[in-house]
Amino acid sequence: LTEKLNIRYPIIQAGMAGGPTTPELIASVSNAGGLGMLGAGYMTAEKIEDAIKKIRLLTDRPFGINLFVPETPEWNEEKIRKSNEMLRPIREKLNLPDPGTIARPDPGQFLNQMEVVLESDVPVCAFTFGIPEKKIVERLKNRGIAVIGTATTADEAILNEKAGMDMVVAQGSEAGGHRGSFAAGFEMSMIGTMALVPQVADQVGIPVIAAGGIMDGRGVLAALVLGAQAVQMGTAFLACSESGAGRLYKEALLQSVETETTITSGFSGKPARGIQNAFIRMTRAVEDQLPDYPIQNALTRDIRQAAANRQDPEWQSMWSGQGIRLISEGSAADLIGQIISDVEKISKSILSY
Amino acid sequence: LTEKLNIRYPIIQAGMAGGPTTPELIASVSNAGGLGMLGAGYMTAEKIEDAIKKIRLLTDRPFGINLFVPETPEWNEEKIRKSNEMLRPIREKLNLPDPGTIARPDPGQFLNQMEVVLESDVPVCAFTFGIPEKKIVERLKNRGIAVIGTATTADEAILNEKAGMDMVVAQGSEAGGHRGSFAAGFEMSMIGTMALVPQVADQVGIPVIAAGGIMDGRGVLAALVLGAQAVQMGTAFLACSESGAGRLYKEALLQSVETETTITSGFSGKPARGIQNAFIRMTRAVEDQLPDYPIQNALTRDIRQAAANRQDPEWQSMWSGQGIRLISEGSAADLIGQIISDVEKISKSILSY
Repeated sequence: LTEKLNIRYPIIQAGMAGGPTTPELIASVSNAGGLGMLGAGYMTAEKIEDAIKKIRLLTDRPFGINLFVPETPEWNEEKIRKSNEMLRPIREKLNLPDPGTIARPDPGQFLNQMEVVLESDVPVCAFTFGIPEKKIVERLKNRGIAVIGTATTADEAILNEKAGMDMVVAQGSEAGGHRGSFAAGFEMSMIGTMALVPQVADQVGIPVIAAGGIMDGRGVLAALVLGAQAVQMGTAFLACSESGAGRLYKEALLQSVETETTITSGFSGKPARGIQNAFIRMTRAVEDQLPDYPIQNALTRDIRQAAANRQDPEWQSMWSGQGIRLISEGSAADLIGQIISDVEKISKSILSY
Repeated sequence: LTEKLNIRYPIIQAGMAGGPTTPELIASVSNAGGLGMLGAGYMTAEKIEDAIKKIRLLTDRPFGINLFVPETPEWNEEKIRKSNEMLRPIREKLNLPDPGTIARPDPGQFLNQMEVVLESDVPVCAFTFGIPEKKIVERLKNRGIAVIGTATTADEAILNEKAGMDMVVAQGSEAGGHRGSFAAGFEMSMIGTMALVPQVADQVGIPVIAAGGIMDGRGVLAALVLGAQAVQMGTAFLACSESGAGRLYKEALLQSVETETTITSGFSGKPARGIQNAFIRMTRAVEDQLPDYPIQNALTRDIRQAAANRQDPEWQSMWSGQGIRLISEGSAADLIGQIISDVEKISKSILSY
């Protein structure tokens, strides 16, 4: 896998959408020997193009782009109305005006994103929330772009392999942010990383990338032992100096413990793991009556952005995995250096054991 | 840890209550260099005494006894009535008579169990569902009996260490059977093993035993890499020839995949992971209105036993962890031999890496 991706260490920085993956973070990870990844799921084609240029100014090492495979949500006016009603007290608290009508999800955005990736010859393209059409996978591969899929069950990994993916992320239940499940239901696909990785590795021939709860050298080496050829780490990079996470989000990450994250659909209509806050508690009771992803996500955008601008931790999404006690500050390069040195140390102590 | 427990390999067979831990299984694990463990939570003192005698006929190696720390459930006649009403169609299906009144939980049973353990000088005593009184821990330690606690969060592990436990099991969310949570709420304590073990290892000074999703040499070595000094495996031993699990339960284990287990409180009033079946589906909607553990457990006992006797997989509890695709038949000794040989192989390949 490291050979195929032309990276020194089997460490991939997760393509966290919504801000944390700055060009600085991506370049820092790639320069340190890992694979930086732009979380481009919510970005327009123009913004992606712009980010790619900035990344290339900072590194000549490989990096990747992570995109969301579009879904066809049910457009339900009644659910939208109810969701806005539920959100009204939050908008009042944040001095936000009543929302106008939101635009219907535009399937063209994904195709535009794809064109930028193809034209820019980014070396790696990763997908989550499903598998893109065969034609897209073929075009990427024809350009020599490595294609990575996401699975939360062994069956989803098999579907990724059948679709021609070069490698697949096995996302365990510990992982922060959105669940990548697309074929299995939510509850049934909450498989812990320790159980998921070896079962996926036994079922597919393509390399497996372990994700979920991996925070340091112990987690990286454990994942390789379980049968993964690389790891994908998101939360571990969130509090790094190069990360675009806001100051209070970083503080929350550094102060929270493993029992303080939870899975919520309240922010986006799709299950995702983050640090408990007032927004999650408030939407808990009506979670299953909200509009589908990405409609609910569009509905809460003004709230999340206003809260982030005000540095208010209670009304923004603060995605985090369960390894949260192990989070570290410092630079991404320091983190990767520490991981590699710990992996070597543990490997040696195992041999003596 | 292996020195303290006087075992060759850091592999503990989980004390699964309700039948699987036959004297043959326990002796087989201990003879192979691991630590066999009697799941004695539901057993009378006399039955435990009897089992200990049988185990000692089969092995002179150390073994352990696992006990449930008693709780004080709320005795709610209305909830009991409603639960029996819900269970009526199942009883009819299984030709069971209407239940008589069940006995209130007897706190004396635990003390009697403790006396047997103390008098028999069993080398290891493990606890789950809480921490026993200080006096009990002291008496065990004074007899030279190693005392093992169970935790599902770092804070629960700290409580175990403060109570004088010699070592603590860190039970990840992948684990089969009952959750050992006692201080943290259910949802907040569903931490995956990959995230839980290093966080617990960082917080306590006593040795950590990893549990949850560990099925083979990969899992065992990964757990040691994460900072555990040993593993506890339950599901992995369930389909072994020496296990007391029924034939159809074993078949269900061998045929199921990782998406087919779920957490239910329907059988006992306490969350536990098992293979989905008709009983779990039927009780799902009313799960949170059932009597407390162990009252609900007593209410469903006739049903579970009748279903087990009839080899009916739909109405008995079939506890299992999420590593279920990796389950193997054969003897427990073969499984341990395979694990040790795989651990050696993987360790060597890591060094070359």
